[in-house]
Amino acid sequence: MDSRSGIVTLLSDFGVRDSYVAAMKGKIFSVETGLKVVDITHHISQGDVRSGAYVLSQAAFCFPKGTVHCAVVDPGVGSARAAIVLKAAGHFFVGPDNGLLSDVMKKGQGFQVRRVEVFQVRGPQTFHGRDLFAPVAARIAAGVAIEEVGPQHEGPVASLDKAPRVESGVLKGDVVYVDGFGNLITNIAPSHLVELGVNVEAGKGTEGIVVEVREEKIGGVSRTFSEVASGELVSYFGSAGTLEVAVRDGSATEVVGAIRGDGVRCRRN
Amino acid sequence: MDSRSGIVTLLSDFGVRDSYVAAMKGKIFSVETGLKVVDITHHISQGDVRSGAYVLSQAAFCFPKGTVHCAVVDPGVGSARAAIVLKAAGHFFVGPDNGLLSDVMKKGQGFQVRRVEVFQVRGPQTFHGRDLFAPVAARIAAGVAIEEVGPQHEGPVASLDKAPRVESGVLKGDVVYVDGFGNLITNIAPSHLVELGVNVEAGKGTEGIVVEVREEKIGGVSRTFSEVASGELVSYFGSAGTLEVAVRDGSATEVVGAIRGDGVRCRRN
Amino acid sequence: MDSRSGIVTLLSDFGVRDSYVAAMKGKIFSVETGLKVVDITHHISQGDVRSGAYVLSQAAFCFPKGTVHCAVVDPGVGSARAAIVLKAAGHFFVGPDNGLLSDVMKKGQGFQVRRVEVFQVRGPQTFHGRDLFAPVAARIAAGVAIEEVGPQHEGPVASLDKAPRVESGVLKGDVVYVDGFGNLITNIAPSHLVELGVNVEAGKGTEGIVVEVREEKIGGVSRTFSEVASGELVSYFGSAGTLEVAVRDGSATEVVGAIRGDGVRCRRN
Repeated sequence: MDSRSGIVTLLSDFGVRDSYVAAMKGKIFSVETGLKVVDITHHISQGDVRSGAYVLSQAAFCFPKGTVHCAVVDPGVGSARAAIVLKAAGHFFVGPDNGLLSDVMKKGQGFQVRRVEVFQVRGPQTFHGRDLFAPVAARIAAGVAIEEVGPQHEGPVASLDKAPRVESGVLKGDVVYVDGFGNLITNIAPSHLVELGVNVEAGKGTEGIVVEVREEKIGGVSRTFSEVASGELVSYFGSAGTLEVAVRDGSATEVVGAIRGDGVRCRRN
Repeated sequence: MDSRSGIVTLLSDFGVRDSYVAAMKGKIFSVETGLKVVDITHHISQGDVRSGAYVLSQAAFCFPKGTVHCAVVDPGVGSARAAIVLKAAGHFFVGPDNGLLSDVMKKGQGFQVRRVEVFQVRGPQTFHGRDLFAPVAARIAAGVAIEEVGPQHEGPVASLDKAPRVESGVLKGDVVYVDGFGNLITNIAPSHLVELGVNVEAGKGTEGIVVEVREEKIGGVSRTFSEVASGELVSYFGSAGTLEVAVRDGSATEVVGAIRGDGVRCRRN
Repeated sequence: MDSRSGIVTLLSDFGVRDSYVAAMKGKIFSVETGLKVVDITHHISQGDVRSGAYVLSQAAFCFPKGTVHCAVVDPGVGSARAAIVLKAAGHFFVGPDNGLLSDVMKKGQGFQVRRVEVFQVRGPQTFHGRDLFAPVAARIAAGVAIEEVGPQHEGPVASLDKAPRVESGVLKGDVVYVDGFGNLITNIAPSHLVELGVNVEAGKGTEGIVVEVREEKIGGVSRTFSEVASGELVSYFGSAGTLEVAVRDGSATEVVGAIRGDGVRCRRN
């Protein structure tokens, strides 16, 4: 049996002013009072599965192995999608199979997915967060094996956007998240720039790159945002390990007018 | 002695940007480091006792029995109202006697109420959340019997709105809460519709009902909000078990222009 | 060795919609799963070190001794300032040496400060909250002695504003915080009014004082804000123990047009 950390994290788009999140926590403690429950965030924009997937993947692996992450951003609420349990890189994830767990699938070397069948909920007066996802997460955190929740689940939604690719000498990626500071976070990793002759680790070739998003062109990839003056646009590899576009002391999403899902292009000068 | 879960929940209208909530938590841990403290919400609109009562009643009973719920929405701060401890359905509640605990009183079969007298606070520089309610809640969570906090308290505020009633063939209820999605939640339960010839469980007669709020008329009670098209008004019995009015992919409070306290009428078509 | 409470509190200006705060919590639990993590707030205005210092000092000492408070409001992120560990009044504080810990330094009778050197982070892709401050705080909470984190640190930033002083018969202080209700909280304590012949404890002379902020003049210091009518300005010594200016059932920051940093003057009528 895999060990458990005794921690359940929660991520949702429920906000924190209603009883919904507290109801989930109450149900978790009702399964096992000794668990710890930690919020990742409940402020994902309503129904924004893509941003939820990103935030989950950034936070989850900071926790100890054996942690159970319960994520609910579920615009279709129970329509066709399955409820799944994923095991990846020693962590457990419980949520809808709508792509919300796709970013964490990319982090591990191989993963297992089970479809939740033993803890079914029926009837109109159900709230899946409280009545399905939270109890399942609590049981797994308490030591229930994922094999017990249901059969193997084939073909989970494993990606929500195209991987960055070089076409005609231009590296094309996407803004996958806009954070609370207005920074545009992309899915472009240092390895994607190698084909353009750039070695980010060695700082080689970074000054010869132009980063484009919407109408803006940023010359060079800086080491940190402090290399530019206040109010200026800058691109750099951020603490998530991917290329970010920011405005020093400002908001790139406002200045550039860019939003999640916008394309980002890198080319040689 | 009744058993305790070791959990203290908090509900207030303090918001989370100041030190007020953390001060309460610090005082709780100062009584007993081993307790768990869980937020229900601190985003009740300032002084909105009615909404606080509703959210508390929705969240509290999801927690294990023996949990202590500390609730502070207290526009009069210490004026005439007593500080009380309520035991209902195996749960403990600490708060002002201003109706904030009225919805939870309706959930249990009988309840006990004690007036807090042993932990008095005096002087102008007191913050009742930090100096009175939190320490009392912590002591009860740590095992102190409610008989020790003070004498029996007669006549607590047990209701903040009229119960739904049928007048001239029209069932009249109220919007008791507007949630973060803009859904209008009423106090009308399936049992209230029986007098109109409707059996909700059996789905019998629900299509012959008209639900009215402000200027809007909604034909029929649906099973879930997914029965209508995006942008349309719908009424259904929600996860709280009472009638809700919602707009699919939208906000009923905005579309209808209705707010907490508005009347809701159900009549036969 | 000093005892530890097993609690780590967090205060920052990161907000709660991104993964940043959860990443810090994950790292803390990765050091020691048995710790408790409690949020003070993450809603300090971005880069507002002065407000962060105030909120930290108001909340921290409500917790049991031996608690570790990890505070990150760090506009310069790693520029010149040191990362420090402070021990004051039996509590531990981890944060940047930019004045964020200055208000708590004033609370204890003497304090020790160490510069963090053993847990260094390098490279552009670091997030000091996650990679430096949280791990250091967790280690101290787990029992590591502050002597082990680095050498004694001389001359920490110990004050961010001038102490209240009497000049030409006028007591001059500052608004050091504006809370979520719009109350203007000053650094003026009852002791500062003694020179003007006022004994607050005894209620002697308080009616003969005029409190001035921006263009407004408030006659007398009240015992509580309930002494004035709804919508009126009032000054009183609040639950923090210092002079506050408020509007009953309203927002003083809006009515007066005053903000953090504004001067407050008290003179005899």
